[in-house]
Amino acid sequence: MSLVTADEIGAAGARLSGRVVRTPTLPCPRLTASSGPEIVVKAENLQHTGSFKARGAQNALLARAERGRLPAGIATFSAGNHAVAAAFAGRAAGLPVVVCMPPNAVDVKVAAARRYGAEVVLTEDLTGTCHALAAERGYELLHPFDDPDVIAGAATAGAELIADAGPLDLVLVPVGGGGLISGIAAAVKTASPGTRVIGVEPATANAVTHGRRAGALVPLPHRPVSLADGLTAPYVGEHNLAHIETYVDDVIEVPEDSIAPAWWELLDTTKLLIEPSAAVGLAALHLGLVRADAGTRVALVLSGGNVAPAALTRLSAQR
Amino acid sequence: MSLVTADEIGAAGARLSGRVVRTPTLPCPRLTASSGPEIVVKAENLQHTGSFKARGAQNALLARAERGRLPAGIATFSAGNHAVAAAFAGRAAGLPVVVCMPPNAVDVKVAAARRYGAEVVLTEDLTGTCHALAAERGYELLHPFDDPDVIAGAATAGAELIADAGPLDLVLVPVGGGGLISGIAAAVKTASPGTRVIGVEPATANAVTHGRRAGALVPLPHRPVSLADGLTAPYVGEHNLAHIETYVDDVIEVPEDSIAPAWWELLDTTKLLIEPSAAVGLAALHLGLVRADAGTRVALVLSGGNVAPAALTRLSAQR
Repeated sequence: MSLVTADEIGAAGARLSGRVVRTPTLPCPRLTASSGPEIVVKAENLQHTGSFKARGAQNALLARAERGRLPAGIATFSAGNHAVAAAFAGRAAGLPVVVCMPPNAVDVKVAAARRYGAEVVLTEDLTGTCHALAAERGYELLHPFDDPDVIAGAATAGAELIADAGPLDLVLVPVGGGGLISGIAAAVKTASPGTRVIGVEPATANAVTHGRRAGALVPLPHRPVSLADGLTAPYVGEHNLAHIETYVDDVIEVPEDSIAPAWWELLDTTKLLIEPSAAVGLAALHLGLVRADAGTRVALVLSGGNVAPAALTRLSAQR
Repeated sequence: MSLVTADEIGAAGARLSGRVVRTPTLPCPRLTASSGPEIVVKAENLQHTGSFKARGAQNALLARAERGRLPAGIATFSAGNHAVAAAFAGRAAGLPVVVCMPPNAVDVKVAAARRYGAEVVLTEDLTGTCHALAAERGYELLHPFDDPDVIAGAATAGAELIADAGPLDLVLVPVGGGGLISGIAAAVKTASPGTRVIGVEPATANAVTHGRRAGALVPLPHRPVSLADGLTAPYVGEHNLAHIETYVDDVIEVPEDSIAPAWWELLDTTKLLIEPSAAVGLAALHLGLVRADAGTRVALVLSGGNVAPAALTRLSAQR
């Protein structure tokens, strides 16, 4: 299993220039005061389509086009943000996109995918339906995270972070199926080997921890459910697990009830609208699950900002 | 009644340099697509203390110090954001601050004022209690909006907007007691006389419209209540009315039920956490209450980002 290289990350950055937002890395004085280490955030909620996924989806289509292998259309599946990003990327490339999403997908994410022109199929069987649609229409099945081009696209966020943040001791990354952390870790470790990279996943949606324990791509035995809806992948990808084993210092789990308070603290102190998934890193810091001493510098990757109104209700009820 | 001059606004800007965030003026491609005119936002939610009020409160104390008239302490009153800002400014100046706030004030605003070291007195009689406390302690009563230094501080946001935004046809400003629009309008009209400045207030909290109709500082006959809690001043200030009559093209009212949808659209499209008060300008655009043709450029002043969790519940319930 080959890992994405620094050259491939650089090529992805060049390819995406002008097509993604170079999102700001922002200081967080109030979080710093309450947390010990100095905190900065990489604000991928301000990315096109409202999440980092716009990087990987666009890089996948652009890289395929460069290789002369642009398909007739794209079939893909996603609980949310990748669906929106694939729709966005497909529209930019002039390709039809069909996205399989679960019936309980967050409404704003379904609406956004449709707004960018994708056909959305709501189905319980995401991968089965997606394979069938791809075969029937002659489309390529684009995996939402287990794809080297998608990983190289996500890595561009890590490269920007290292370039913009100054020296970092630790980067905390939300983990679903492993797409974001694969890229971030590859970029961080090739540019700044001394920076720790730690992934954080909800205990109720711990596909990566489960896969690492099994030493294989064993899906979770239950359907993962979390306030952090963006992190509810049922399994870790093969390319992703390879990147994680090579580049990631640790992947830890946070209890479900730690996510809403961390989410609120991020909203209140940064005044950025982020989705709950983006808050798991701060939850891990609050619980002392990662070492982060005063005087060190920690980056939180804020993966997206596509918030379900229902999650806002839950948030405010828990305070 | 003297109006703040361009020189006074420039002096306030110099005084506040390094003490306020030069908040970004951001393009809004998705709002632009749905609204006709090109929309930009002045993101005062990213200001210290989470609102534009940090400008006026600090300018008031710094200007008094320059004049050799720094008081022994500050007594002030506010439904919220000015309380937080006065606490912040007092701490920076080393002055004790006591703030009278209504018993129904938004909890995050009460907590923030206390976090910055202010004494908070919850009372139904804001001005009476505040006057009594000022007299008892020998403090100066700092009016939250009816004060030339406070207005000149708010004006610095307008000066930044004009400098950063490029040519603007229209600036839409949320209106409570008139502090923000007094300053914004003075700055905009002295620098760019052709730019229209229109204030927007909730129909249920229309102190300025009420005062203009009466031609005097007649308080509202009812207690103003709105989802836009930051705009519920009971009367327009004397200095504020003078600035409005001179510099503001119009002040219009929006119905209460138009605020939540506009608030949600701003959250969803900008991924900035703003408070409902900041959304009244977009509500007015949506309702066609202000002329804003395709091809023109409109700035929305996003006055603050201190959101009550209870307001989030109401928001999500209304969608």
